[in-house]
Amino acid sequence: MTIFEKVNALRSLMEEKEIHAYIITSSDPHMSEYVPEYWTARQWISGFTGSAGTVVVTRKKAGLWTDSRYFLQAEKELEGSGITLFKMGIPGVPNQYQWLLSELESEANIGFDGTCFSIAQSKELKNSLADISIHINEEGDLINEIWSNRPSLPNHKIFEHPVEFAGKSRKEKLAIIRNEMHQLDAKHHFVGSLDDIAWIFNLRGQDVDFNPVAIAYALINEDSCTLYLDQSKLDDELIFSLNKDGILTSDYNQICNDLEELRGSENVLLDSNRSNLKIYRSITANIIEKENPSQLLKSQKNLTEIKGMKQAMLQDGLALTQFFCWLEENLGKTIITEFTLIDKLREFRSRQKHFMGESFGSIVAYKAHGASPHYSTTTETDCEIKAEGILLIDSGGQYMNGTTDITRTTALGELSPEDKMDFTLVLKGMIQMTLAVFPKGTRGCNIDILARQALWMYGKNYGHGTGHGVGCFLNVHEGPQSIRQELKDQAILPGMISSNEPGFYKEGAYGIRHENLILCKEKLTTKYGEFLEFDTLTLFPFDTKALDINLLSEIEKSWLNHYHQKVYDSLAPQLDEKHKAWLKNKTQAI
Amino acid sequence: MTIFEKVNALRSLMEEKEIHAYIITSSDPHMSEYVPEYWTARQWISGFTGSAGTVVVTRKKAGLWTDSRYFLQAEKELEGSGITLFKMGIPGVPNQYQWLLSELESEANIGFDGTCFSIAQSKELKNSLADISIHINEEGDLINEIWSNRPSLPNHKIFEHPVEFAGKSRKEKLAIIRNEMHQLDAKHHFVGSLDDIAWIFNLRGQDVDFNPVAIAYALINEDSCTLYLDQSKLDDELIFSLNKDGILTSDYNQICNDLEELRGSENVLLDSNRSNLKIYRSITANIIEKENPSQLLKSQKNLTEIKGMKQAMLQDGLALTQFFCWLEENLGKTIITEFTLIDKLREFRSRQKHFMGESFGSIVAYKAHGASPHYSTTTETDCEIKAEGILLIDSGGQYMNGTTDITRTTALGELSPEDKMDFTLVLKGMIQMTLAVFPKGTRGCNIDILARQALWMYGKNYGHGTGHGVGCFLNVHEGPQSIRQELKDQAILPGMISSNEPGFYKEGAYGIRHENLILCKEKLTTKYGEFLEFDTLTLFPFDTKALDINLLSEIEKSWLNHYHQKVYDSLAPQLDEKHKAWLKNKTQAI
Repeated sequence: MTIFEKVNALRSLMEEKEIHAYIITSSDPHMSEYVPEYWTARQWISGFTGSAGTVVVTRKKAGLWTDSRYFLQAEKELEGSGITLFKMGIPGVPNQYQWLLSELESEANIGFDGTCFSIAQSKELKNSLADISIHINEEGDLINEIWSNRPSLPNHKIFEHPVEFAGKSRKEKLAIIRNEMHQLDAKHHFVGSLDDIAWIFNLRGQDVDFNPVAIAYALINEDSCTLYLDQSKLDDELIFSLNKDGILTSDYNQICNDLEELRGSENVLLDSNRSNLKIYRSITANIIEKENPSQLLKSQKNLTEIKGMKQAMLQDGLALTQFFCWLEENLGKTIITEFTLIDKLREFRSRQKHFMGESFGSIVAYKAHGASPHYSTTTETDCEIKAEGILLIDSGGQYMNGTTDITRTTALGELSPEDKMDFTLVLKGMIQMTLAVFPKGTRGCNIDILARQALWMYGKNYGHGTGHGVGCFLNVHEGPQSIRQELKDQAILPGMISSNEPGFYKEGAYGIRHENLILCKEKLTTKYGEFLEFDTLTLFPFDTKALDINLLSEIEKSWLNHYHQKVYDSLAPQLDEKHKAWLKNKTQAI
Repeated sequence: MTIFEKVNALRSLMEEKEIHAYIITSSDPHMSEYVPEYWTARQWISGFTGSAGTVVVTRKKAGLWTDSRYFLQAEKELEGSGITLFKMGIPGVPNQYQWLLSELESEANIGFDGTCFSIAQSKELKNSLADISIHINEEGDLINEIWSNRPSLPNHKIFEHPVEFAGKSRKEKLAIIRNEMHQLDAKHHFVGSLDDIAWIFNLRGQDVDFNPVAIAYALINEDSCTLYLDQSKLDDELIFSLNKDGILTSDYNQICNDLEELRGSENVLLDSNRSNLKIYRSITANIIEKENPSQLLKSQKNLTEIKGMKQAMLQDGLALTQFFCWLEENLGKTIITEFTLIDKLREFRSRQKHFMGESFGSIVAYKAHGASPHYSTTTETDCEIKAEGILLIDSGGQYMNGTTDITRTTALGELSPEDKMDFTLVLKGMIQMTLAVFPKGTRGCNIDILARQALWMYGKNYGHGTGHGVGCFLNVHEGPQSIRQELKDQAILPGMISSNEPGFYKEGAYGIRHENLILCKEKLTTKYGEFLEFDTLTLFPFDTKALDINLLSEIEKSWLNHYHQKVYDSLAPQLDEKHKAWLKNKTQAI
């Protein structure tokens, strides 16, 4: 079927069911960042393969809404499909709700699959279209009726994340969560987000790319607890272990029935950004809408997790040493493209102990490709890498003991003074964030400026946040903290691990980004507060030959030299002589 | 009448009117920071003279809630009154609503004067006591019935703030506000805040201390406009001028009748933080609750206002030069106390052109007194100032062309290395804020860290914000911007004038605060944004002999030397030889 045929098939179904507009999101029922193929309906109907976008189809028109990361890609992929691209964030471009407001008549019927709409999203839809009193039909998954060879749900085995890596048993975690429930007077707690479930129950899966999670729901009651999932994914030993810990298992589709049976007088705690509308409709009991307690608990790593993350950084540093040494040896001698490097990165990481996969699709962005912060190599864009220009590599690994995320920018040839200046200003920002000291209660938006100040002084900036939370052998993007300009009332707390990744992007020329992971920890307590600081976990040198040393302060130079010494001291004992010598050279003091 | 008798008289009246709890706020009907004596009911009933506090009286008990600034003072002033002090912000201390919840029975009647309660406050009261379904009686001002010799309302003359200082005529300002009303589809706009009224109509008054405003309400309609005030305050010429500009005047008490007559189908724009409950109840038309547009308009000074503010800083700098030179000459030769200096400050300022009064009560805090950021000298605390220790002086003037607010901390003798370090760390913070460069859209909470970082590095901090907006011959504290850690989604925009006043307070020893006023202005526009910076307006040197120069970076030293040169160059031409020489010495490069 062509896109055109698919959209027409949907329209016939819409007519039959008296639906005037149908919305297809890129979500799954768990509001995941990465979704299994089964839930790629938006991609199937439109041909657009980007990770974020919404399709709206009316009887006569169809549109796709996506953000600036995907403008070029969407334009290409939508060509000839009859679907109009709406560039989100561009002045004058209506969002999907404003567009619907102008396209629909009063009392129109809007349909969508309620399992792929969060409660928060559905509230937004309703509020935005309040003026034309629409009717919402969230029951039918119309795409399912026309998607003949729809992929099946993933059924990979689920495995234990042992306490030796998790640090806390699931029984201990459940006790803490039940205590939080008790404080909120909640008898039940529904959990729909896959990373929360993975963390609470010390389980890991392989149902989606990059995130080691399994498709499941959880219902935690005062004194019982059930996991809803495809039970064939669990082996007997794991079922036995779960049961021993007071955790029952049930079928994935049983969740709504069980929610319907909760008594109306009892409180159910639920996260409206992490629960879908169908779940919400199943509950007749009283709902307390609040962020999942596991979000904050999960973000504050325990000592075992911190130890594991440090070990994972060491493994990652060893792999990157081998990778960059290989690149230096082979550059100009054999044909190397972006895809070659993506494969090589995976190969070197996969030789490391505890390796379980990549934590996201590697960004290998040569020269002008780097100017798109989320560039992803395709067969069309892949290009040869030569001994010149700037190469940006942002990649990470999943290891049983931790998750990594590291960006290094390398000069493959001689740089101009301006290139060096940009490289150095970004590094100054990264170092200043690393050096931050702040009292407990300080939020990400209060400290974000530290990473930007050096660039701002020259009228430069970058259009993304400085830091996101990182899970421990879990999602490489997690909350609740974030380091960015936007206001969010979440303090950066001890145990939180965040990325520290300022950048600078010069259109048509290059991208520069320096990224380490930093752990928040206690520094000192005085009459004036409990002060925190960051500890850098990532272990790999920065390209000092790309620096304009005159732009660095003494403190910044000293930090860089100490950091490089630490990188060498940590990695060298596990390297052979060749790689040791290579690293020695890369970590020379400036 | 003693406090005890007053509270008992109130209780009799409460019994008569079947009221179980009566609340007395420190507000006036205009939600002002400084209130005329007429509205000092809370002070009258309790004897507590602090600027912030709420009294709640039940049939058997009475309490006063105030913040940490006033704990000591309130304890003393409430002694023997039978009123219990509740220290706000101390863990375990209930706020007035929690306390009422525990004291009152269901269906209790709570009374207060609705004119002295903001809409926002009354919503908070209702929400907090929702569990016991209270009845609110906001009609009666019970204090008025027992306050026999209540002061009368102030009736000082109102005068014009000429366009030569205001920069924009009231007709122009009204046109801008009507445009904003139009955008919100509001036919009417009620204005209750006195500084908004003063700014919109280019009028100034003398009804309260320090703020040059007059008691009034305003109702701006699409094509008419009325000021509600004691009309005897206006002379014929001013009435003629107002009428000519399409502005009618009416009696102060007429506002509610006129609001009642607005048609139900029309929208009234109103600021719920700046309007009282009685106003709200008078309106049957549809209300749009939003910050007064004049708040943001007023904060972005026009070129005339900026010129005037700069001139006022010059005047202030000349007065302070004379003041500090006098202090140096007389210290140790004659008895000087905090009160002496408060008087001398006023005297030197009053000799300056355009002087209209002080912009707030001067803080002259010697040694340990300085450790309370809002210290105010009383006859009990006044003390002799000698040639030793640290003296903090925070003061400001109202001039026809502008408002000033400046803090300088002076070493009157030799300082210890630790004292010097504290002095220098605070100055580093002030300089770093001054040097900030940031893209348009950046908020106060995004940049506040610049003023704190130097202190935080050593586990030190201060418990107040870094910057507040300052009016132009208007209130020394104004919004909507503020530079502080707390989240507020208001960008710092070109034309805004804010204070820049980090501090450090060492209990039992001293207070250090350095305060300049800074103007936000455009710096450069690039592909990456429109970048802004600050321009320092205040003109008076810092005490360089109190510095630990080793703690200053080259950039900070260079800023300080340039600033001191500018101070000298600006003030010297208007100083006699003696003062010129004194200033020359104080502005020597370090």
